[in-house]
Amino acid sequence: MSTLIKNGRIITAEQDYAADIYIEKETITTIGTKLNIQADKVIDASGKYVIPGGIDVHTHMDMPFGGTKSSDDFETGTRAGAFGGTTCIVDFSIQSKGMSLREGVETWWKKGEKATTDYSLHLIVTDLSKGQIDEMSDIVREGVTSFKLFMAYPNVLMVDDGTIFKVMQKAAKIGALVMMHAENGYAIDELVKQAVAAGNTAPVYHALTRPPAAEGEATNRAIALAEMAGSPIYIVHLTCNDALTKVEAAKDRGLPAFAETCIQYLTLDIEALRRPGFEGAKFVFSPPLREAWHQEKLWNGLRKNVLSVVSTDHCPFNFKGQKDLGKESFAKIPNGGPAIENRLQLLFHHGVNSGRMSANRWVELCSTNPAKMFGMYPRKGAIAIGSDADIVLWDPNAEHTISASTHHMRVDYSMFEGWKVKGNAVTVLSRGQVIVDNYTWLGKAGYGKFVKRDAYTGAWK
Amino acid sequence: MSTLIKNGRIITAEQDYAADIYIEKETITTIGTKLNIQADKVIDASGKYVIPGGIDVHTHMDMPFGGTKSSDDFETGTRAGAFGGTTCIVDFSIQSKGMSLREGVETWWKKGEKATTDYSLHLIVTDLSKGQIDEMSDIVREGVTSFKLFMAYPNVLMVDDGTIFKVMQKAAKIGALVMMHAENGYAIDELVKQAVAAGNTAPVYHALTRPPAAEGEATNRAIALAEMAGSPIYIVHLTCNDALTKVEAAKDRGLPAFAETCIQYLTLDIEALRRPGFEGAKFVFSPPLREAWHQEKLWNGLRKNVLSVVSTDHCPFNFKGQKDLGKESFAKIPNGGPAIENRLQLLFHHGVNSGRMSANRWVELCSTNPAKMFGMYPRKGAIAIGSDADIVLWDPNAEHTISASTHHMRVDYSMFEGWKVKGNAVTVLSRGQVIVDNYTWLGKAGYGKFVKRDAYTGAWK
Amino acid sequence: MSTLIKNGRIITAEQDYAADIYIEKETITTIGTKLNIQADKVIDASGKYVIPGGIDVHTHMDMPFGGTKSSDDFETGTRAGAFGGTTCIVDFSIQSKGMSLREGVETWWKKGEKATTDYSLHLIVTDLSKGQIDEMSDIVREGVTSFKLFMAYPNVLMVDDGTIFKVMQKAAKIGALVMMHAENGYAIDELVKQAVAAGNTAPVYHALTRPPAAEGEATNRAIALAEMAGSPIYIVHLTCNDALTKVEAAKDRGLPAFAETCIQYLTLDIEALRRPGFEGAKFVFSPPLREAWHQEKLWNGLRKNVLSVVSTDHCPFNFKGQKDLGKESFAKIPNGGPAIENRLQLLFHHGVNSGRMSANRWVELCSTNPAKMFGMYPRKGAIAIGSDADIVLWDPNAEHTISASTHHMRVDYSMFEGWKVKGNAVTVLSRGQVIVDNYTWLGKAGYGKFVKRDAYTGAWK
Amino acid sequence: MSTLIKNGRIITAEQDYAADIYIEKETITTIGTKLNIQADKVIDASGKYVIPGGIDVHTHMDMPFGGTKSSDDFETGTRAGAFGGTTCIVDFSIQSKGMSLREGVETWWKKGEKATTDYSLHLIVTDLSKGQIDEMSDIVREGVTSFKLFMAYPNVLMVDDGTIFKVMQKAAKIGALVMMHAENGYAIDELVKQAVAAGNTAPVYHALTRPPAAEGEATNRAIALAEMAGSPIYIVHLTCNDALTKVEAAKDRGLPAFAETCIQYLTLDIEALRRPGFEGAKFVFSPPLREAWHQEKLWNGLRKNVLSVVSTDHCPFNFKGQKDLGKESFAKIPNGGPAIENRLQLLFHHGVNSGRMSANRWVELCSTNPAKMFGMYPRKGAIAIGSDADIVLWDPNAEHTISASTHHMRVDYSMFEGWKVKGNAVTVLSRGQVIVDNYTWLGKAGYGKFVKRDAYTGAWK
Repeated sequence: MSTLIKNGRIITAEQDYAADIYIEKETITTIGTKLNIQADKVIDASGKYVIPGGIDVHTHMDMPFGGTKSSDDFETGTRAGAFGGTTCIVDFSIQSKGMSLREGVETWWKKGEKATTDYSLHLIVTDLSKGQIDEMSDIVREGVTSFKLFMAYPNVLMVDDGTIFKVMQKAAKIGALVMMHAENGYAIDELVKQAVAAGNTAPVYHALTRPPAAEGEATNRAIALAEMAGSPIYIVHLTCNDALTKVEAAKDRGLPAFAETCIQYLTLDIEALRRPGFEGAKFVFSPPLREAWHQEKLWNGLRKNVLSVVSTDHCPFNFKGQKDLGKESFAKIPNGGPAIENRLQLLFHHGVNSGRMSANRWVELCSTNPAKMFGMYPRKGAIAIGSDADIVLWDPNAEHTISASTHHMRVDYSMFEGWKVKGNAVTVLSRGQVIVDNYTWLGKAGYGKFVKRDAYTGAWK
Repeated sequence: MSTLIKNGRIITAEQDYAADIYIEKETITTIGTKLNIQADKVIDASGKYVIPGGIDVHTHMDMPFGGTKSSDDFETGTRAGAFGGTTCIVDFSIQSKGMSLREGVETWWKKGEKATTDYSLHLIVTDLSKGQIDEMSDIVREGVTSFKLFMAYPNVLMVDDGTIFKVMQKAAKIGALVMMHAENGYAIDELVKQAVAAGNTAPVYHALTRPPAAEGEATNRAIALAEMAGSPIYIVHLTCNDALTKVEAAKDRGLPAFAETCIQYLTLDIEALRRPGFEGAKFVFSPPLREAWHQEKLWNGLRKNVLSVVSTDHCPFNFKGQKDLGKESFAKIPNGGPAIENRLQLLFHHGVNSGRMSANRWVELCSTNPAKMFGMYPRKGAIAIGSDADIVLWDPNAEHTISASTHHMRVDYSMFEGWKVKGNAVTVLSRGQVIVDNYTWLGKAGYGKFVKRDAYTGAWK
Repeated sequence: MSTLIKNGRIITAEQDYAADIYIEKETITTIGTKLNIQADKVIDASGKYVIPGGIDVHTHMDMPFGGTKSSDDFETGTRAGAFGGTTCIVDFSIQSKGMSLREGVETWWKKGEKATTDYSLHLIVTDLSKGQIDEMSDIVREGVTSFKLFMAYPNVLMVDDGTIFKVMQKAAKIGALVMMHAENGYAIDELVKQAVAAGNTAPVYHALTRPPAAEGEATNRAIALAEMAGSPIYIVHLTCNDALTKVEAAKDRGLPAFAETCIQYLTLDIEALRRPGFEGAKFVFSPPLREAWHQEKLWNGLRKNVLSVVSTDHCPFNFKGQKDLGKESFAKIPNGGPAIENRLQLLFHHGVNSGRMSANRWVELCSTNPAKMFGMYPRKGAIAIGSDADIVLWDPNAEHTISASTHHMRVDYSMFEGWKVKGNAVTVLSRGQVIVDNYTWLGKAGYGKFVKRDAYTGAWK
Repeated sequence: MSTLIKNGRIITAEQDYAADIYIEKETITTIGTKLNIQADKVIDASGKYVIPGGIDVHTHMDMPFGGTKSSDDFETGTRAGAFGGTTCIVDFSIQSKGMSLREGVETWWKKGEKATTDYSLHLIVTDLSKGQIDEMSDIVREGVTSFKLFMAYPNVLMVDDGTIFKVMQKAAKIGALVMMHAENGYAIDELVKQAVAAGNTAPVYHALTRPPAAEGEATNRAIALAEMAGSPIYIVHLTCNDALTKVEAAKDRGLPAFAETCIQYLTLDIEALRRPGFEGAKFVFSPPLREAWHQEKLWNGLRKNVLSVVSTDHCPFNFKGQKDLGKESFAKIPNGGPAIENRLQLLFHHGVNSGRMSANRWVELCSTNPAKMFGMYPRKGAIAIGSDADIVLWDPNAEHTISASTHHMRVDYSMFEGWKVKGNAVTVLSRGQVIVDNYTWLGKAGYGKFVKRDAYTGAWK
């Protein structure tokens, strides 16, 4: 099986040139002009950008949360991702308290069997009480080379600074990357308790009880602990200036501190949580949406490379039947929102079309940096000889209106309902296979494979 | 009883002029030239600076620590302070775990009965499990208007962020100032454990297991918690650039964040802990001495008013019989060092004589700011009509060699043994009473009174 | 002649206490409670703040400008100042091109003979072509210890960087302070030319052709030249964040860089220049009023002591007959505005009453710092034994409406017309003499004397 | 004519993968594995990095200076460059005072006819007195899209701020990039005059009379003028922290401010100028070498992308016969040093080998960013389909000792004499032609062509 993509404009993190791409089986083997090669399948990319498929390194498919679970599984979630130009995800497996680390990974491997595109896993560590720290090396050898910890959610996912410090020391030794959910859980829990006691239960109190200072504090603490442990640190879903300045200060000092933001923090703000009725619940996730002025700071962080990655924290819950568990109190609303399908569209529209960044930078943030940061480059994240043919034909002029009535995520609302964007994924290949053809689904569940990732080396910087 | 101080050069935080001071009983009632007043006692201050008595807001007299207690009590400690030009201290009372707040204060009032000069108290809060938070208002009404918390020493003095946050919220309501020992206890404890396990037990490992990043982290966390709680915050014994930059950033944003450093951090460095034999133990206290380059940053912090106060954290333990409890491991060395007698001398010599600051600023850092910050101004910290006649005649040209063989602190070593300084307290008055007369002790135990302090208002800024 | 001020609340840069002040002839000789002294005159200060008289270090009385001259002379200007609580000014004498430095000073001594309060002089240097640099030492010996240079107004007042550098080197040697009007004259002149050519001649174009970047640039350049020359530098009338950050960065590095702002930059913004008709001309001065957001930055600069002084750049021109010289083009509007009478009122109202600063800081900015910076302390700027009895009784509760119809400046409009303020000078003494008594003028022309100032030493810091 | 480069490891600014490259005539047309193509010439790149040829955007070939001229012409200079892996230069043409801009360009086109590799030109503007500003558009249309101005060398090359401002405004309109030699000429000239007058004539006084503050000042001024003019700005040969912080602050504010440093500032320091005898003269160029601590700041600037380009300012003068014109005074030493041949070697050795940067970043700084910044990408600076086949086979393990006895620059000394480096260019292609084959010269004078560059658009960011 061979495929030829002709007449496209290839855009990578660095480059922008016209050429054809020849794919043998799953792999790019030749790039050139006037390629005199016979192919089983020829795709005309005239007028399209040809980019490496998007990589979303922050998703929660099929995730249990407060008695329910996120509404997308690996099949529906990766399918929706593909429609939006994302051909690889890294999802979070979770260690159950008291259990081994491997048990967490294996549970998610099982879930991942339905994936329609390639996927990999991080592991959330919640408990080291039974010597699980020694298991970390095995997990890394399996290709799960990143561990996530929580500074929020006391008594649920939160671990204390001693646990964090030990995981970081170990990670530094074995080439793993520590990812941090950075919010001060104790202060937030106290504020939540006080708000509920005062009868302040509407969705917006979710944001008001999780102030930027709580995120800035925890971000700084995560970086300091990593500095003492001699490990790299990756802050997930950074939302606000307070946290951004901490990452920037660390970089200024030469520390291997990195951060991602998510597409919703760049485009939405706290006012969404104030929408009438219970509408605000659609925007309840953590950290919360911030006052609008933080957006420009985040865009600036992307420009200056303080933020290296844009992800989604995709974690959908239906408005009816799930979000409404929190009708009486914001504290019971399942935390999460749907975004995997809209990441490339929104970043292209609000980033590239608006002049905030080049198309190169857009590719870098959505695909190349995620691959490099998480040990998948140049297998993923590149249009280069030898790379997996995870390729997206992107029409920079396609106009599209985002809506729950047309999106492919298995959730009954969109955070961006009715928003118009210009630029969309037309045709998508996963390891050489066309899975979306001119906006039509050709993929299938189980095609996606688990990606064993390399250890973190820092060499890509 | 009236006293006239003639021919002096009065130096306050702002002023510098020649005049006579007339004291009726305990209080300054007249300042002028050619005062035509009869006085019971006339003191000639020719050639001397006449300054408000020093105030040391960070001392630990008669303090229990790991089975022993600090070697100075309120009598010997305040007497030594007076010889060095300090006429008022604010010591730390400690809530015993499980007990009421008042019990802590009362225990220290008892200890304070022996004081030779006036004293006040802060209260260290260690436990809120029995509703002690409601007691805070009563404590403030008693004139104990500042509460100290520890982020270090897990299982001993450390409280979690939830406790800190609640104390701060309460303090904000009742006009109290929260003081913080800012070091990340969990990370330090892990490093200590690892060092001891590796056989690294010499005194210098005390410093190496408490890195600047641990202090910087906790300082930032304390400030962030205070920001969320809406309370002022005062960082005690700040030692390093990492913490300094955090206080500065907070001030830049307009937050009521303050910090003191101690005289030893300005003048000593980590090399002291590496002295041969067990000598390093003399310099074991927390946070530890830092690499020498931090000193210049601290002096700069004083210049820019990021640091508002110079104190001592005076907490002496004898080298023989106390410090040697840690002969086998630095982790068992009683933490603390003697300094109350040398604060004004050293800051004058290394600050004023070396051109780093004016004599006005020296007075401000040693007396006026401490009084203003802790609710005692203008009763203390001022040469002004109506102020307590706590007055020091300072000879800027007096040469003095610091030594354990001549100092008045009840401890068998000096951290500054053999150091020569220029500038010393000659004659000292406490509430109008001459207690040091031309280097000779005239004071007596029990003369000192407890100072009820005003609530924190921030108005002095 | 002796005077007793009784029952007042004395507020200095540092202090706040109740006491009586006894004045013999021109000098404060005693401060105390229950002073048992006979005085020729007794003033009851009950309910009043008793503060050192304001010092305005930036005024232009009787100053030639574009064929006209500023409408206040030393008599009317100092009288208006006194009504507003200012008892000393430092005005700018100007070297005429081609003439000696002394000629400039002597011309202004002549003008100053009419002063109703004490005054001193700076000297604006415009030309070194005839060896005037060697004259600088003589000028300093006369008590004119500060020299001002212009980076703006090419071909009029502007001197090139070589001239600036030479003056700075000389000043460093002889203990003089260099003051800088910091705006990039070349860029501004080009913008003005382009605006006029494009028919953009309304008053607001005065501001639009003098962007903040022009001030920020010149401020940085002045500091860098001073750094190379080893001299202190004082930036006059700083208006914007761009310049403020430069002074702050210099201070952070320990350079002796200082700056003042003026009361109008703290309270007015560029919108004033857009008022209908020719009204905007009332607010034409240089640097111009800025966008409103700069104000909060300036207040912050006062809080952090990046700005050490608040002055006025008082330079009034009548709206009718003077400002209207620029009816056809903003480029011909005489630059300057009236403010000397309103400085203390406005800074008290918008600073102290609004909670931005303490009354101590207000005194420091308006009186003590100006005196210390310019070599007049403690003769001026202090309530202390031996100081000149330049004293203001300030009623913090007096309500006042600012208006040209009631003010004492000789100019036909007020920049603050109709503004209500709380806090005003009731009674004013100049060297022991009551010149304003309960809002009534008792002073007289010629009473004021020239103040010989000390060399700049930096010792007050 | 076709060429096949087989078995190499292709390293670009982004990528790192194994593939073969097929070149038809001058252009890369195919990249792939197992290319089944016949080629006239096959080059085995086993064990080599295959990188886009280096681009040096700051050279002075055949340049008149103080009665002599730089010792390399376009033939010898480009040849030496090729030996060091540089296949394209952008040299500086100079407008003679009083002449047209075109005259400058044409003079250099003439000089360029001898080039052995492709070259382009910037234009140094020295005089606008005869309306030359209007000529700028024509010059840009010729492909000379960058104009350089001097803030140093009064009466020689320096132009005043008004001229700078006008050129910037024009450049902004026509898509040209303004490059700045940023040093304060007036202050430096005064310092030089004083040094010479004091008999301080040794080479090191060249550095001591050009302090970092002079460069920091001018850098800030250039950025501010560009901000006011709305134009991008590119600071050439940035050497010190003072200037670096200014560029960083500008970038933080989102301004299109860019800077290069040169390889000598990263590797040499002021001590070189203190070498015994007249040796220091070998290191006399402007701005001068700085104290060693600046180096780490510059490396940090490269890491953070504050510095986008590493160039050489290659401007050789023989030690004997040229440099010795300044034997009696540093002020007469021809300014400049030889470096074109050693740029890639030294940055690879001290950057990549030492772990300071990745090989990708090295390619980016030496080739890709220069091409993008100066309108030559992807024609130059890329290994991509359609790009000029300017390709270097780099042996990362080749060991080499730099020496004047073996280098190819036409100059009698090396600034890096005896330095050992690892990593060197083995074989070099210029537009498909092998000009260096296994360290042997195959090129010829006149092969190089002038490169018409695109207008500056900023789109590459």
